Amino acid sequence: MAQIGARTWVVPGGRVPFPGHGREPEFGSFDQLCVLNATDQEAELSLDFYYEDAEPVGPYRILVGARRIRHVRVNDLIDPEAVRLDRPYGCVLRSPVPVVVQFLRQDTRLPGVVALTGAMAYPG
Amino acid sequence: MAQIGARTWVVPGGRVPFPGHGREPEFGSFDQLCVLNATDQEAELSLDFYYEDAEPVGPYRILVGARRIRHVRVNDLIDPEAVRLDRPYGCVLRSPVPVVVQFLRQDTRLPGVVALTGAMAYPG
Amino acid sequence: MAQIGARTWVVPGGRVPFPGHGREPEFGSFDQLCVLNATDQEAELSLDFYYEDAEPVGPYRILVGARRIRHVRVNDLIDPEAVRLDRPYGCVLRSPVPVVVQFLRQDTRLPGVVALTGAMAYPG
Amino acid sequence: MAQIGARTWVVPGGRVPFPGHGREPEFGSFDQLCVLNATDQEAELSLDFYYEDAEPVGPYRILVGARRIRHVRVNDLIDPEAVRLDRPYGCVLRSPVPVVVQFLRQDTRLPGVVALTGAMAYPG
Repeated sequence: MAQIGARTWVVPGGRVPFPGHGREPEFGSFDQLCVLNATDQEAELSLDFYYEDAEPVGPYRILVGARRIRHVRVNDLIDPEAVRLDRPYGCVLRSPVPVVVQFLRQDTRLPGVVALTGAMAYPG
Repeated sequence: MAQIGARTWVVPGGRVPFPGHGREPEFGSFDQLCVLNATDQEAELSLDFYYEDAEPVGPYRILVGARRIRHVRVNDLIDPEAVRLDRPYGCVLRSPVPVVVQFLRQDTRLPGVVALTGAMAYPG
Repeated sequence: MAQIGARTWVVPGGRVPFPGHGREPEFGSFDQLCVLNATDQEAELSLDFYYEDAEPVGPYRILVGARRIRHVRVNDLIDPEAVRLDRPYGCVLRSPVPVVVQFLRQDTRLPGVVALTGAMAYPG
Repeated sequence: MAQIGARTWVVPGGRVPFPGHGREPEFGSFDQLCVLNATDQEAELSLDFYYEDAEPVGPYRILVGARRIRHVRVNDLIDPEAVRLDRPYGCVLRSPVPVVVQFLRQDTRLPGVVALTGAMAYPG
C-alpha cells in the first residue's frame, strides 16, 4: 500500500472537556486523536504533550497496525502519566512511517447538549 | 477548466453517528464526503475503508461528473459491503484527476440536538 | 504588507442550511466565506459555484479592500443568480493577489439550537 | 527539540460571539488562538488584526515559552486596543521561531447551548 501522510503531526489546541454527561463511552466528553496507517508496517507512534506551565511529558506510545486506523481518546492516556482533564495541552505525534492524524473533540459538559469540533492535525 | 486539487485524499477520523433523530434525510446522523471536480473529465473515485480490527475494504466507486460536485453520505455506501454505523473507520480516496475533498459530520444522536464538525481531507 | 496566502481556494462541501430560527442576521442559518487580504492592493475575487446536476454558475464578484477582511454570506450572493438554499454546492474562489479563505457554517434549522462547523478552504 | 511549524499564520474568519451564557470562564463565548512552541527558545509573537472597515491594528504581543503552549482568548487582548466583541476580524500571527497555531470558537449566545468550531490556522 502507498505511503500516505507525514511522520510528524501537531495539535496545539487540546483540552479534554470536563465533566461529561450521558451514557459512557459514547456520550462522554473527550479529545480524540485519529490515526490512519496505510502502510504495510505496524507503527509505534510516540506522543509528547506540551503544557502552559510545565515541561513536556512523554513519550506516550500508541500502536497502529499495518493497514489500520486507531482512534485514541486522550482521556485514556495514562503512561507515563494521566493527561489531566480540563487542562490546556498541545500534542506532537511522531511516527516511523507516514500516517495521517485528525483531531476531534466531543463536549458534553452541559446535560442534553453535544458539541463537536475538530481539525486535521498539522503535518510537520 | 483548471486542474485544482490532488489525486489522493485521506480522512482518518470517520464514524457514522448512530442513531439519528428527526426527519430524514435532512436531520439524520451521517458522515459525508464532499468532492469537487473542476476538471473537464468525469472522475471515477476509488475509496478504501480502513478499520481498527480488520483488513481494508474496497474499492468503493463514486462517479463525479466533469465540472460537478458530489456529496456522498458514508451511510449510503453499500458495495462491496455496507459501512457499519457507529464503527470507527478511516478512508482513502483516489481519483484519476485532481479533485478536492471535504469531510462533514452531522450528529443527531440526541433528540432536538444538531452537532456538526468537519475538516478538509488531507491531500496525499 | 506581506503577500500571504494563495490565489485559488476551494470549498467542496457547501450547503446553506434552511430554514433558520432566531433573530436575523445573527441567529440565521448561513454558509460564510471569510477572506483576508493582507496585500496593499484591493482584490476583486471571482467565484464560481459548482453543483451536482448543472453546469457551474459564475463569476460572482467580491471586493476585498487592501489590508481588509470580508465575511460574505453565501445566502447574499445573487448576481448572476441567487445561490439556492439547501442545495449542495462547491465553490472555487480566484483572486488577483494572494488571500486566505476560511469557510464557516451556522445551522439554526432547529429552534433553540446553534450548530457551527467550518474549515480552512483548500489552497489551489 | 525540533523546529516544527511555520513563522506566519493566518485566521481570516474571526468574530468573538456575544454575549455568552453560563459560568465564566469555562462557558463563556470566545475565540481562541492556540499556539504550540516546540523549540528551545521563548517566542514573542506579534499579532495584527484586520477589519472590514478600518486599517489593521497591532502589533499585539503574546509570549510563548520554550517547549510550551499558550491558549489565548481574543476577548482578552486589550493592548494596543481591545478587540471588540461581535465584530468580524482576521488575524495574522508572526513568530521569530516556527510554531503551530489552531483556532477555536466557543459560542454560548443561547442559554443552555454550547456550539464549537475551529480550524488549523493557515501557514504563511
